Amino acid sequence: MILILTPNIEPESNTYQQLMAHLSCLPDIRLRVHREEGTEQTLTEIYLIGNTSSIPTEDMRDLPGVDRVVRVSEEYRVLGRHRDDDRSSHFNYQGLRFGQDTLHVFAGLCAVDTAEHVEFMMRALRDHGQVCTRMGAYKPRTSPYSFQGHGKECLPYVFDLAGKYGIKVIAMEITHESHIDEIQAALHATGNPTGVMLQIGTRNTQNFELLKIVGRQQKFPVLMKRGFGITLSESLNAAEYLASEGNSRVVFGLRGVKTNMGDPHRNSLDFAHVPVVKRLTRMPVCVDPSHAVGSRTRGPEGILDIMHATAQGVIAGANMVLVDFHPVPNRALVDGPQALLLEELAQFLEDVQIARDAYEKRVKLAARYEDELQSAVA
Amino acid sequence: MILILTPNIEPESNTYQQLMAHLSCLPDIRLRVHREEGTEQTLTEIYLIGNTSSIPTEDMRDLPGVDRVVRVSEEYRVLGRHRDDDRSSHFNYQGLRFGQDTLHVFAGLCAVDTAEHVEFMMRALRDHGQVCTRMGAYKPRTSPYSFQGHGKECLPYVFDLAGKYGIKVIAMEITHESHIDEIQAALHATGNPTGVMLQIGTRNTQNFELLKIVGRQQKFPVLMKRGFGITLSESLNAAEYLASEGNSRVVFGLRGVKTNMGDPHRNSLDFAHVPVVKRLTRMPVCVDPSHAVGSRTRGPEGILDIMHATAQGVIAGANMVLVDFHPVPNRALVDGPQALLLEELAQFLEDVQIARDAYEKRVKLAARYEDELQSAVA
Amino acid sequence: MILILTPNIEPESNTYQQLMAHLSCLPDIRLRVHREEGTEQTLTEIYLIGNTSSIPTEDMRDLPGVDRVVRVSEEYRVLGRHRDDDRSSHFNYQGLRFGQDTLHVFAGLCAVDTAEHVEFMMRALRDHGQVCTRMGAYKPRTSPYSFQGHGKECLPYVFDLAGKYGIKVIAMEITHESHIDEIQAALHATGNPTGVMLQIGTRNTQNFELLKIVGRQQKFPVLMKRGFGITLSESLNAAEYLASEGNSRVVFGLRGVKTNMGDPHRNSLDFAHVPVVKRLTRMPVCVDPSHAVGSRTRGPEGILDIMHATAQGVIAGANMVLVDFHPVPNRALVDGPQALLLEELAQFLEDVQIARDAYEKRVKLAARYEDELQSAVA
Amino acid sequence: MILILTPNIEPESNTYQQLMAHLSCLPDIRLRVHREEGTEQTLTEIYLIGNTSSIPTEDMRDLPGVDRVVRVSEEYRVLGRHRDDDRSSHFNYQGLRFGQDTLHVFAGLCAVDTAEHVEFMMRALRDHGQVCTRMGAYKPRTSPYSFQGHGKECLPYVFDLAGKYGIKVIAMEITHESHIDEIQAALHATGNPTGVMLQIGTRNTQNFELLKIVGRQQKFPVLMKRGFGITLSESLNAAEYLASEGNSRVVFGLRGVKTNMGDPHRNSLDFAHVPVVKRLTRMPVCVDPSHAVGSRTRGPEGILDIMHATAQGVIAGANMVLVDFHPVPNRALVDGPQALLLEELAQFLEDVQIARDAYEKRVKLAARYEDELQSAVA
Repeated sequence: MILILTPNIEPESNTYQQLMAHLSCLPDIRLRVHREEGTEQTLTEIYLIGNTSSIPTEDMRDLPGVDRVVRVSEEYRVLGRHRDDDRSSHFNYQGLRFGQDTLHVFAGLCAVDTAEHVEFMMRALRDHGQVCTRMGAYKPRTSPYSFQGHGKECLPYVFDLAGKYGIKVIAMEITHESHIDEIQAALHATGNPTGVMLQIGTRNTQNFELLKIVGRQQKFPVLMKRGFGITLSESLNAAEYLASEGNSRVVFGLRGVKTNMGDPHRNSLDFAHVPVVKRLTRMPVCVDPSHAVGSRTRGPEGILDIMHATAQGVIAGANMVLVDFHPVPNRALVDGPQALLLEELAQFLEDVQIARDAYEKRVKLAARYEDELQSAVA
Repeated sequence: MILILTPNIEPESNTYQQLMAHLSCLPDIRLRVHREEGTEQTLTEIYLIGNTSSIPTEDMRDLPGVDRVVRVSEEYRVLGRHRDDDRSSHFNYQGLRFGQDTLHVFAGLCAVDTAEHVEFMMRALRDHGQVCTRMGAYKPRTSPYSFQGHGKECLPYVFDLAGKYGIKVIAMEITHESHIDEIQAALHATGNPTGVMLQIGTRNTQNFELLKIVGRQQKFPVLMKRGFGITLSESLNAAEYLASEGNSRVVFGLRGVKTNMGDPHRNSLDFAHVPVVKRLTRMPVCVDPSHAVGSRTRGPEGILDIMHATAQGVIAGANMVLVDFHPVPNRALVDGPQALLLEELAQFLEDVQIARDAYEKRVKLAARYEDELQSAVA
Repeated sequence: MILILTPNIEPESNTYQQLMAHLSCLPDIRLRVHREEGTEQTLTEIYLIGNTSSIPTEDMRDLPGVDRVVRVSEEYRVLGRHRDDDRSSHFNYQGLRFGQDTLHVFAGLCAVDTAEHVEFMMRALRDHGQVCTRMGAYKPRTSPYSFQGHGKECLPYVFDLAGKYGIKVIAMEITHESHIDEIQAALHATGNPTGVMLQIGTRNTQNFELLKIVGRQQKFPVLMKRGFGITLSESLNAAEYLASEGNSRVVFGLRGVKTNMGDPHRNSLDFAHVPVVKRLTRMPVCVDPSHAVGSRTRGPEGILDIMHATAQGVIAGANMVLVDFHPVPNRALVDGPQALLLEELAQFLEDVQIARDAYEKRVKLAARYEDELQSAVA
Repeated sequence: MILILTPNIEPESNTYQQLMAHLSCLPDIRLRVHREEGTEQTLTEIYLIGNTSSIPTEDMRDLPGVDRVVRVSEEYRVLGRHRDDDRSSHFNYQGLRFGQDTLHVFAGLCAVDTAEHVEFMMRALRDHGQVCTRMGAYKPRTSPYSFQGHGKECLPYVFDLAGKYGIKVIAMEITHESHIDEIQAALHATGNPTGVMLQIGTRNTQNFELLKIVGRQQKFPVLMKRGFGITLSESLNAAEYLASEGNSRVVFGLRGVKTNMGDPHRNSLDFAHVPVVKRLTRMPVCVDPSHAVGSRTRGPEGILDIMHATAQGVIAGANMVLVDFHPVPNRALVDGPQALLLEELAQFLEDVQIARDAYEKRVKLAARYEDELQSAVA
C-alpha cells in the first residue's frame, strides 16, 4: 500500500510528524519513504510493507497529510500500474521529458572506437536536430578474448564532443558499479557538458547486486534492458530492484529474445510487448531494433528490416529508440554488420516520424470511439 | 533453373515442340512444366530439375520460345525470390488481387456456431464495405473431447449468406483432403455464390500429404499458416510443397510462435518476419493478430493489443489480416476471449487504414532516398 | 467416468442389457463402449461422457456387471492414469508384451534404400537375438525436393526379409491413411511374415484426421512420437485422439524437442519426461536417441553421445528404444550422419542392458525403502 | 598456442630466462604465464596470444624448458580440450580430487535458514559418510521483496558446524565480489574448519565483471552454473572468463534451461550435455537435479523424478551432484517444494551409486570393444 502525501509536505511539519507517529503503530508493518524532488514540487510517498490487506483504504486516506492511497498488487510495487493508480508515468532529465507519452531517438555507436568516429556521429546528430545518442564504452562480450570496450579512457573525449555538439543525454551501458564513479568523475572533469542514462544490458538484467547499487543513486536515470532468455515478468521484477532501492527513473528496453524462432534475424523481436509493458508498469518503453534484427537485410521495397522493426515499435507507442549507426561499419569493432550509415540517418528519422504520426492518429481514433461510446451510454 | 516462356505460347506450336525436343536431350535433367492460365494471358514456365550448374544461362535464354531465365537457389524453387527474379508476386481470385502490394482484411468467425451469428457478421462486413471474411467449419482442437466444428453441415448457409451480403472470398481452414470436395460440393449446390481460400492451419504446416493434395488442385488459392513450433525456413519449405505440385497461388500467414517468451500474450509475435517472407519469397503475407495475442488486453491508451499487433504487421507491409470477431464472444464455442466485437469493426478498419497509409508513405520515402542516391551517383 | 465390467461379459447377456438400460436413462450422459479382445479374456469398458460429477461412484459400482469404477480427470480420459486407476499399462502384439514394465530395442534403417542393406540389417539383428526393428518406407522431408522414401514399392522385400530373419515387429512411419492399406496389402501378399507398429512422426503429432483414422483400426499398434514444437501435454492429448477412436495400444515416443538450447545436439533431449509420461498415462514410453542427438560425436571415454542418451532413457525406465543403424552410413539417403554401424550393434545392446539392469536395481531399492517405511509405521 | 613447461621449472632459472627472451621476440605475440602450484609439483604454462598460425609447433617444442605444445582453437583456450591436448582434467581441493573421473555428491540446504536446520543436515551427511555439502547464504531472487538469504550473518555457524561434522567442502553461491571477502573473513575467524567452492548462479553466468574478479583469486575453486537462457557455447565461453584471469579450477554445472518444453518440470533438463561438456572442455561436470525438476513428483515405480534425473546425469558420467535437502521442507524459505527429506538421503546415495556403477561398467565395455577393434586391425 502506498500513501501519496500532499505535495511539498515537509518532514519537519506537524502534519508529517503526526502521520508518521500514527503509522509507526500499525502492527507488523514496516515503512519506507520515497522522496522525489522535482523542479516544481517535491513528492513524498510512504510504502507500507507487510500484510496490509486488513488495513482499510479509507482509514489511510483520512489521515493528515495523505493526498491519496494506492493499493499495490504483489508485483512491481513501485514501478507497477496498479488499480486506480494515477501516479505519473514520466520523469525529466537534462530538460527532456521521458514518459509514456514522448518519443526520443538515441542513435549512436554501439562501441566507441575512435574520437574521430564519435565526432562524425555527433556532428551528424546535431545536423539533424538530435540531442540524444548512445555510446558504448564498457562492452560485455561473450568471449573473454574479444574487444571489451575502451572503458573510462574514452569518456573524456566522448563527453567533450557531446558538449560541443549539443548532445544532452548519452545512453551508456555499465557492467560494474565502479563504472558509475568513473562516469561521474569524467563528467566532473569535463565540466558536465552532457548527461548520461545508465544502461543495464541484457546479460545483467538479473545481476541484482548491480541493480541495487544503481538503484541507490539518483543522479542518473536508467535504461534497463530486458533479459534475452527470461520472461517479461522476470525482467520487470528485475527493474523493480532499481526502484525498490530508490531510483524509479527507469526506461524499460525491449531488444529481442533468444529463441530458435527468430531466424534469419539475430533474435525474436518482442516489440508486441510495447503496450504490455506500458499497461503493467509506468515505465516509458524503449525498443532496440539493431540488436533485435542484427543485420542489414531489407525487404523488396528496399526498406531495411531494422527500419521496419523500428516502425513496428513506434506505431505501438514506443517512447525511445536505441539504434546503432557507424561512419564506417566495416571498421566497427563491435556489431558492425548491423550498423546504419550516417547517410541513412535522415531517412531513418523521417521514417520514425511517419510511424509516430500514425501512432498519434491511432490514439486520437481510439479516444474518439471511446467518446462516442460514452455519449451513446449517456 | 526456370525458363519463362513467351506469354501465350501454345504446347502445339512448332516453337514449343522444338524447345522441348532440345531440352529433353540435356543429360541428367528432368523437366517439369507449370502452366498458369490468367484472365489476360497464359504463362508457361519450365523447371529444369537436376544438376543445372553446368548449363550456361545464356544458352538457355537464346532458345526458341524462351523469354527469360531464372537461376533458382536450392530452396523455395517455385515460390522463392531468386536473383534477377522478376516473376510476379501476386495472383487474382474472384476479381480481387492478392499481391505483395495489396491489403485485404479477413474479419470473421474463428468457428461457425449458428447461422444467426454468421449473418450478423456478414451484414456488418457488408455495411463496412468488406468483401472478404474468415469462417471456421473444421476446427482442429488440442483435445479430442472439445468441439470440433460443425464441418460440412454449416457450409450451405455460410455460402448462401456470403452471397447475400456480397462476400467474395472466405478463408476456411481444412484439415483433411475430403474437405476440399465437401466445400466444392457445397459451393456447387448453392450456386457458387462466393469463393473460398483454403487455409492450412499451424498444426498441419508439415502435414506434407495434405499439402501435396491441396497443391494438386488449382481451383482454390491457399492461405498457408506458419508452423508454430518450427523455424521460418521449415515453414517456407512446407509452402513449397503446394507449389511443387502445381498451385502457387499461396498466401503465407504469420500467426505467432510457441515459446516461453511471449507471455502474457498467447504466442510470441513474429510479425517482424513480414519483410523477411516478402524478401525470400514472392508470396503475399498475412498476419493473424487474434491467435498471436490471444486476449482482449489493452494498453493504457485504451487500444487493444490485437489492434497494436495488427498495426505492427501492416506498417511493415502485411498484405492480409485475419482477425476474429464475434457478435457475442462469451457464447463463442472456440477462442471467444480473443474475439473483437462487431461494434469495434469500424475502429479496427480505420486503425488498419492509418497503418497502411503510413506503410505507403514509408515506401515512397524509401524510393525518394533511393532516387537521390542514384542522382548523386550519376 | 469409466465403468470396467466383469471380464468376458457378453453384450447379449441379461446383466449387460440391464446395465445398459439403466445407464441410458442417466440425464445428459452419452455412453461409449470399448471392447478389447485379448488372448485370455475380453475386457469391456463403458465411458460415461458428460457432466458425471453428480453421479456417485458407489452407485455405479453397485450396478450389475460392473467390476470397478474409475473417475477420470478431464485430460487423457482413455490413456490417462487416474486416481485409483488400476487399468493395465501394457498390451501384447505378435507374442511380445509392450508395457511400462518391459524393454524392447528397435534398431534399424531410418529409411529403406536397398534390399541388400535391409538384409544386412536384419541378419545382424537375428545374429544378436533381436526380434524388432525399424524400417522407414514413407519419409516426410522438410523440402519437397528431397528423397521421400521408396513407399509401398519396398514393402514386399522388407516384409519377406523380416520373415526370413525372424523379425516379429517392424516400427514403420506412415504419413497418410492410404499407407495403412498399402501395408496391410503387402503383409497379406507376403503371407503375413511379420507385424507392423504404425509410427506417427513428430510432424504429424497434431494431424488429428490421420490420428482418428489410425485410431479406428485395431490391427496395428501405434508408436506416437511427441511433437517437437509443442508441449508434452499437447502431445499426450494428441495420443488420446487415437484412443478416443478405439485404439489404445499406443506407445509414446520421446525424440527431443526443438529449442535453441540443445546445440550441439540436433534437438534438446527430453528423456527426463520418461517417468512423467509413465505417471500421467498408462502408455509404455519409447526413446529415440538417434533423432534427438543427430550426430556421431562422443565423450572423452569414447562412448557415443547416442549411447549416453540411450542409457539416460533406459535408466529412468524407458520401455522401447528406436535407434538408427546403417551398414554404410555415408551411402544412406536420410540421416546417415547419425546412424550407428552394424559393428557397433553388440556394444549398443550390452550398453542398453547395463542401463536396464541399473533401472531394475533402482526399482528394487525404492521398493525396499518403501517397505521399511511401511514397517516403521506399522 | 600453449607451451607447457617442464614441471617445477623456476622463473629464476637460466632455462626459463632464455626461453622468455626468445619468446618475447616473436612479432605481434603477447605472452601470458599461468603457474599452478600443486602439492607435488608446480606447473607452468605460457600462453602465446595473437596470430600464432604461422609459428611451427615443432619450433616451439624444441625450445629449452618446453615439455610439450598444445595448439588451441579459438574457443575455450584455457579450459578447452584441444587436439592432442593431454592437459589434466582434474584439480585437488581440501584433499579431494575433482576431475572428469570422480563423483561427489553435494547434498544440502538451498538456503540457510536456522542453525538448527544446518546442524540436522550436516549430522545426517556425516552419518552417511559425506564430506561435501551445499549451503546457500546469498540468494538471488526474482523479486526484490522475497527473502534474499541470511548473507554473512550465517557464515560463522555454518562453518563451525561444517568443522564439527567433518565437512570438507561447501558449495556456496556468491552474487557480489564482496562476498568472497566475507567468506574468507568468516573462514579465518572460525579457524578455517572447512573449504568453500564458490558458486556462480545461472543469473550471473554472463556477469563478466564478477567472473573476472572470481577468476583472479585462486584460493577457492568455482562451480559455474550454465546460464538458463543462453546456449551451451555461450556458457562455456563465460567459464573461460574465470580461467583467462587465472583460475582454472572450475566445475561446470548443468541445471536445466528455460523453455516452454520442460513442463511439468520447472526447467528442460539438459543432462544430455554431460558428455558434450566433457568432450569440449577439461572441466568436471556437475548436475543439479533439484532446480531442473523443481518438484517432488514421482514415477509409477515410486521413484522421485529428482532421483531419475540424477541417475540420468550420473550414468552419462557426471562428476558432481548438487541436490537440495531440508529437514522440514514446508518451513524452508526458498524452494521447499523440491527439497528431499533427510529420511531419503540413504536411498538417494544408494541410487546414485547404482548409476555410478553402471557408468563405470559402460566405460569398461567401451574400452573392451575399442581393444578388440585395435586387435582386429593389428
